[in-house]
Amino acid sequence: MRVLVIHGPNLNLLGEREPSIYGTQTLAEVDASIAACAKDLDIEVRCVQHNSEGAIIDELHATRATYGAVLLNPGAYTHYSYAIADAVAAIPIPVIEVHLTNIAAREAFRSRSVVAPACAGTVAGFGSNSYVVALHAAVKIPIK
Amino acid sequence: MRVLVIHGPNLNLLGEREPSIYGTQTLAEVDASIAACAKDLDIEVRCVQHNSEGAIIDELHATRATYGAVLLNPGAYTHYSYAIADAVAAIPIPVIEVHLTNIAAREAFRSRSVVAPACAGTVAGFGSNSYVVALHAAVKIPIK
Amino acid sequence: MRVLVIHGPNLNLLGEREPSIYGTQTLAEVDASIAACAKDLDIEVRCVQHNSEGAIIDELHATRATYGAVLLNPGAYTHYSYAIADAVAAIPIPVIEVHLTNIAAREAFRSRSVVAPACAGTVAGFGSNSYVVALHAAVKIPIK
Amino acid sequence: MRVLVIHGPNLNLLGEREPSIYGTQTLAEVDASIAACAKDLDIEVRCVQHNSEGAIIDELHATRATYGAVLLNPGAYTHYSYAIADAVAAIPIPVIEVHLTNIAAREAFRSRSVVAPACAGTVAGFGSNSYVVALHAAVKIPIK
Amino acid sequence: MRVLVIHGPNLNLLGEREPSIYGTQTLAEVDASIAACAKDLDIEVRCVQHNSEGAIIDELHATRATYGAVLLNPGAYTHYSYAIADAVAAIPIPVIEVHLTNIAAREAFRSRSVVAPACAGTVAGFGSNSYVVALHAAVKIPIK
Amino acid sequence: MRVLVIHGPNLNLLGEREPSIYGTQTLAEVDASIAACAKDLDIEVRCVQHNSEGAIIDELHATRATYGAVLLNPGAYTHYSYAIADAVAAIPIPVIEVHLTNIAAREAFRSRSVVAPACAGTVAGFGSNSYVVALHAAVKIPIK
Amino acid sequence: MRVLVIHGPNLNLLGEREPSIYGTQTLAEVDASIAACAKDLDIEVRCVQHNSEGAIIDELHATRATYGAVLLNPGAYTHYSYAIADAVAAIPIPVIEVHLTNIAAREAFRSRSVVAPACAGTVAGFGSNSYVVALHAAVKIPIK
Amino acid sequence: MRVLVIHGPNLNLLGEREPSIYGTQTLAEVDASIAACAKDLDIEVRCVQHNSEGAIIDELHATRATYGAVLLNPGAYTHYSYAIADAVAAIPIPVIEVHLTNIAAREAFRSRSVVAPACAGTVAGFGSNSYVVALHAAVKIPIK
Amino acid sequence: MRVLVIHGPNLNLLGEREPSIYGTQTLAEVDASIAACAKDLDIEVRCVQHNSEGAIIDELHATRATYGAVLLNPGAYTHYSYAIADAVAAIPIPVIEVHLTNIAAREAFRSRSVVAPACAGTVAGFGSNSYVVALHAAVKIPIK
Amino acid sequence: MRVLVIHGPNLNLLGEREPSIYGTQTLAEVDASIAACAKDLDIEVRCVQHNSEGAIIDELHATRATYGAVLLNPGAYTHYSYAIADAVAAIPIPVIEVHLTNIAAREAFRSRSVVAPACAGTVAGFGSNSYVVALHAAVKIPIK
Amino acid sequence: MRVLVIHGPNLNLLGEREPSIYGTQTLAEVDASIAACAKDLDIEVRCVQHNSEGAIIDELHATRATYGAVLLNPGAYTHYSYAIADAVAAIPIPVIEVHLTNIAAREAFRSRSVVAPACAGTVAGFGSNSYVVALHAAVKIPIK
Amino acid sequence: MRVLVIHGPNLNLLGEREPSIYGTQTLAEVDASIAACAKDLDIEVRCVQHNSEGAIIDELHATRATYGAVLLNPGAYTHYSYAIADAVAAIPIPVIEVHLTNIAAREAFRSRSVVAPACAGTVAGFGSNSYVVALHAAVKIPIK
Repeated sequence: MRVLVIHGPNLNLLGEREPSIYGTQTLAEVDASIAACAKDLDIEVRCVQHNSEGAIIDELHATRATYGAVLLNPGAYTHYSYAIADAVAAIPIPVIEVHLTNIAAREAFRSRSVVAPACAGTVAGFGSNSYVVALHAAVKIPIK
Repeated sequence: MRVLVIHGPNLNLLGEREPSIYGTQTLAEVDASIAACAKDLDIEVRCVQHNSEGAIIDELHATRATYGAVLLNPGAYTHYSYAIADAVAAIPIPVIEVHLTNIAAREAFRSRSVVAPACAGTVAGFGSNSYVVALHAAVKIPIK
Repeated sequence: MRVLVIHGPNLNLLGEREPSIYGTQTLAEVDASIAACAKDLDIEVRCVQHNSEGAIIDELHATRATYGAVLLNPGAYTHYSYAIADAVAAIPIPVIEVHLTNIAAREAFRSRSVVAPACAGTVAGFGSNSYVVALHAAVKIPIK
Repeated sequence: MRVLVIHGPNLNLLGEREPSIYGTQTLAEVDASIAACAKDLDIEVRCVQHNSEGAIIDELHATRATYGAVLLNPGAYTHYSYAIADAVAAIPIPVIEVHLTNIAAREAFRSRSVVAPACAGTVAGFGSNSYVVALHAAVKIPIK
Repeated sequence: MRVLVIHGPNLNLLGEREPSIYGTQTLAEVDASIAACAKDLDIEVRCVQHNSEGAIIDELHATRATYGAVLLNPGAYTHYSYAIADAVAAIPIPVIEVHLTNIAAREAFRSRSVVAPACAGTVAGFGSNSYVVALHAAVKIPIK
Repeated sequence: MRVLVIHGPNLNLLGEREPSIYGTQTLAEVDASIAACAKDLDIEVRCVQHNSEGAIIDELHATRATYGAVLLNPGAYTHYSYAIADAVAAIPIPVIEVHLTNIAAREAFRSRSVVAPACAGTVAGFGSNSYVVALHAAVKIPIK
Repeated sequence: MRVLVIHGPNLNLLGEREPSIYGTQTLAEVDASIAACAKDLDIEVRCVQHNSEGAIIDELHATRATYGAVLLNPGAYTHYSYAIADAVAAIPIPVIEVHLTNIAAREAFRSRSVVAPACAGTVAGFGSNSYVVALHAAVKIPIK
Repeated sequence: MRVLVIHGPNLNLLGEREPSIYGTQTLAEVDASIAACAKDLDIEVRCVQHNSEGAIIDELHATRATYGAVLLNPGAYTHYSYAIADAVAAIPIPVIEVHLTNIAAREAFRSRSVVAPACAGTVAGFGSNSYVVALHAAVKIPIK
Repeated sequence: MRVLVIHGPNLNLLGEREPSIYGTQTLAEVDASIAACAKDLDIEVRCVQHNSEGAIIDELHATRATYGAVLLNPGAYTHYSYAIADAVAAIPIPVIEVHLTNIAAREAFRSRSVVAPACAGTVAGFGSNSYVVALHAAVKIPIK
Repeated sequence: MRVLVIHGPNLNLLGEREPSIYGTQTLAEVDASIAACAKDLDIEVRCVQHNSEGAIIDELHATRATYGAVLLNPGAYTHYSYAIADAVAAIPIPVIEVHLTNIAAREAFRSRSVVAPACAGTVAGFGSNSYVVALHAAVKIPIK
Repeated sequence: MRVLVIHGPNLNLLGEREPSIYGTQTLAEVDASIAACAKDLDIEVRCVQHNSEGAIIDELHATRATYGAVLLNPGAYTHYSYAIADAVAAIPIPVIEVHLTNIAAREAFRSRSVVAPACAGTVAGFGSNSYVVALHAAVKIPIK
Repeated sequence: MRVLVIHGPNLNLLGEREPSIYGTQTLAEVDASIAACAKDLDIEVRCVQHNSEGAIIDELHATRATYGAVLLNPGAYTHYSYAIADAVAAIPIPVIEVHLTNIAAREAFRSRSVVAPACAGTVAGFGSNSYVVALHAAVKIPIK
């Protein structure tokens, strides 16, 4: 099984960006822990990061034939990008929404995800472990 | 008269994407039927597709001097892209909002278009015929 | 094919009513241009106007067996007549919502149509050409 | 005791109109079952149907001196006709709101009745039996 | 000067309808006091009453050439009839909205008038004197 | 046929509790009139009362195999207990929502029922006769 | 009979303030026309103007024993001063809300009056004639 | 490490309750799969089910000294039980909100969790695997 | 005079629960200070705590004949338990709503009490002194 | 300890103003009962009344150095005066919001206090005893 | 050029009032820095402070003939004083709204300014430098 | 000090785009006046323009190490781009939101900025002078 991990906007600044909220791990370190877990689960994983909404849509489209699942952290696009939600709905593979933080416990606007209704499920609140936990979920979801 | 047709995000997956909603025609087939109609109406037409909001804005800007009208299907951007709406308002040629589906009969968020107030008019609900119908409208709108 | 055109409340004053918004053509002139287009398309068309919500419902009911499509401009009823919406849903032929103006660009209350979800599609914003454009759509909609 | 049954807009199409929602019984058949029940309860009943809001108001006014109760199915007027609500409040006999379907389980707009506050009570959700059940209620309500 | 007085739905039951709210005067008595005041002001007045929204629109249309002003009590249509509001806006003579009661002090839904924005002004809260007071206003409004 | 009647919170105080709203009959008297009606209809009935949301859910679960229908007056839980609504949806027998008062005519919060969408239908506003009327409905509902 | 006229905030700038909205008459000219009308009606009138909410409340309190009615134009306080509304409710004489403009036809915030529910009635939209028209109303209101 | 799993209201009917939504596994089967996973992770787990809000609160309180983490599926209480949210916030151990279904993709009321802000994180949408996935998260959360 | 004090959900954890918000006094210590004050005021007091909504309703019912007043801290039920509000309204003795914290200064959802409209009055914000202060109020309220 | 009591707008009319709501005691009588209680508690008290929002702010500012606490009844300013709320927040001594009536049980607008979040606590609903009860609270609040 | 600076309610407590939000500079110090900047820009400046809404309106009126611009910090009146907004609109000179803090980043109610629509522009978030920055803007605005 | 100026979507059309709203200056002319001011203030400035949301985020990220402040005109992204807001919050240098027009005085949707809460402050309404005024602010803000 091959899994794509898409990190959304501003996640490239991880470790440096508001560390009291997002922690001090860099994105490279997060990707390393994802890779380690993938190895344990004996699956193939690729991690990308995009600040552009259009690029995330392009990535989802490109992925549809070659991956079995997507872990998607849409960052702030979570809260208004119906275009990304439509892209998730348009492709035939399951997408899991992932968040580092417990978005329900933060600003009011972050408690609504417009992307979630198109996803298979959600994992949120466990820091970089959210991705690892979601990988365990991915390997158990039957293909759409 | 020259008319530009802009297909917004996820329309490149037409035919494959949720066919029970969007039908089984591919975008190439839709563009062919637009071209056929343009020939009938003796107008020139060019069709483009963009997943990126910024690219759609760029396209609208570039178009302003060389086309007489635009048919714009903003896809999911319809519902939140005030930036595209501003681009429509910023250019001196008429823009017609086009939708394949009757967006008023779908999810609640799809019943509000933030782009429509800046457009000349709207055609929605006739599948790929929406573009053909809108072409008939375009040839009758006087230049802004 | 036979198409019924229903003009809703206040449209009988067309030409005289707020001409800066609705133009200076009278309803008779609009109907004449509809008739001309119908002739071109080789279809039969009948135009009626009603100020009463109940009369519009009666007309839709009466029509259901003898026409292939309806062009309906519900006027201000667009924004609150769930009874007309129910009538549209109750009959087996396609109904196209038509508006002279781009209602999305006017007062806030006009941007919501309660009738649209029951219709096949919408054409709005092209002045009296909206009817003509909608006729082109009507001839292409398969019977429900 | 004499009871008036008022069927509101689109109910004349019963049996033919969206049968998956409203069933396949015609209005004549519903009226027959109401008549049968009235006979059992030894009361007099008259059934009318109106698509026009004004006609329903006229009927309520005309009724006020000669009937002991009204069963009113306001159809879609349920959700916005404050004029019918005022008519119900204006007459001295009890009015029971009746619905074929469980309106709370349908579209969001149908869950609010502006007529109900002026009525004596409500019976909804039992198909054409709603009228029969409401007749049992009517015979037990003391005159206002 | 000729003034038309239009009483809306349920006003025919005046005197009998919820007298603790609307008083015990009948509509005939109200019309008599309007006539007396008109005589004092040396103007011509005609009073009509309609329960139907469409009939009120028809009346407004018919009036436009032959009266100098209209006193309109839209009853419960005040709160949702955009069609009547459009009719008021469509005719070239001033319309004054009149209410027997102080609608701002009653149920929440009565505090919003969708007709008022199209009117010249409003007089409310003075019982049947509201019409008399509005007649004094009418004679002072210049023709639109 | 066996029917279960569940009286919700505070109904044990009937007769004593705000008698101007709920009447002076005690719950025992109400249950007696239900029993009398059940005898007439030749059905078996059992009446219970619970103040606890969890107990109502337990009762609905326990009932599902042994009763043919439930009359449920959820009291104030009507307006917020999605857990009771889920319990109603979870069991295979029809549940009829019953209210003594016309809840649409009382405080604003009482006009919304979160339980109703899961029920077969609603009877409200006829005092203790609401149960009797609902029994007539119950015997006519086919098993889900 | 003695009537007090209270002009609220910014009305001292009448004639100079946004004349396209409020007209070119000065407050002195308005007061003169009120005085002339008062003379005709054989009543005594006093006019005051205050920019301060507290001063308007003080004025209403001071007035309560010595005047038979108040014409109150609360200006922008109309839309939020519950304190003035409470003062109107606290005094035993009738208060008529008066507006120069048809506030329902202006900005959204102006369509809601928090003062109106405490008043006897409202006159709005007739320019400075609003006061004159309201004087006619005042002489016909029985003391509270 | 010891982990408590709390199943909320109606989950005892799993397998039987709306199987198209919740699947056909019984709660006993779900608990067995949780136990199997716990064994793999070498942790101790106890599973309980409660229909009563108060019982869930009691359980959370009792747990606080003897467990290292809680997996809580609050069922429908998710959407309104501030009391359960307060209980979660009141205890010193991490609580993970778990849902079988992707609640964001269902009825509107299910997209808001009032419990989530007090939790450490959320896992939703993976059927009974949601619990298994959450167990993987639990073993990685440091004690609060 | 006898006064019942009902502590709602999670108050049993007082002293241990979020001490920065609720302080470090235990419930036993709070009850001791209430008892001391009761002794000073020469009244009899009993304190109970319940996590269950149904148990609080039962307690209010049981109390109605034997106590002269109730101090009720509904905890989080304050914000949604219409069932407790109905119980308060159903009993003939005055109930005073008491809160340790100034709920208006906390999360948005805590600023609305659905129980308060049924109570005699409210005391909030004085820590455990809120109960003591409310006892002073209780001895001065005449029996309902 | 010195305590300042500020009575807000319209409280000078106490005893005369809507006595069915506010009682028949005059403000002088209320102040006398406050003084008597202050004597019992051995504290110094001064009572003032202002109709002007600005004067209340000035009073709060002037007080900050010379009083240990303030009892503030903001009257109708409670519901919109963010300026008074800011003044309360700006001074270093505790302010207790006091209301004669149970504002939660009256008009909807009165259930929201914009001043409360800046106060130490609230006492409401005990008539003039609200002040006396609040004095007991004041003597127990530690200085901010 | 002469510029008037109006400091609104509670700004007289600057330096002492919530210094973590508003800083430790006193109003006199702020005024000194404004004076220094005015000298640099070679303009005349006068600074006043008012806690009363009416006094701010009076000041704006008095200013209109003798100043070329106003810097207005309406304090908390920013969020509800339509009367001050009307005063700004009523005078012929430009008014710049100034705030010490970035009001968009504070409590929700502070993110809406009802005064701003009547102003020429806004400067917010730079502490006492907001006034200095606004002075630079004032000298560049052409007289209205 | 180095300052980056980011012009958002559609600002490249300045001078040509809706000149009655945005003026007739081109972006090049605006940049020239910014450069002139920068020279006066002896700071270094670079101006860029992007139509793409992702490009603006990239620019903000790239800037964080090499500039001391950013002037950001997010154009229409102001009203919905939480992704840009997150980027502003993620970088350690102050960002000032700048608008040519007084956005509070335009369409309703423009009065809410989702970016502002993450910025240091705002300057709006002074045409191209807004940038110049903001430069004066930038030089006075201490680095975050």
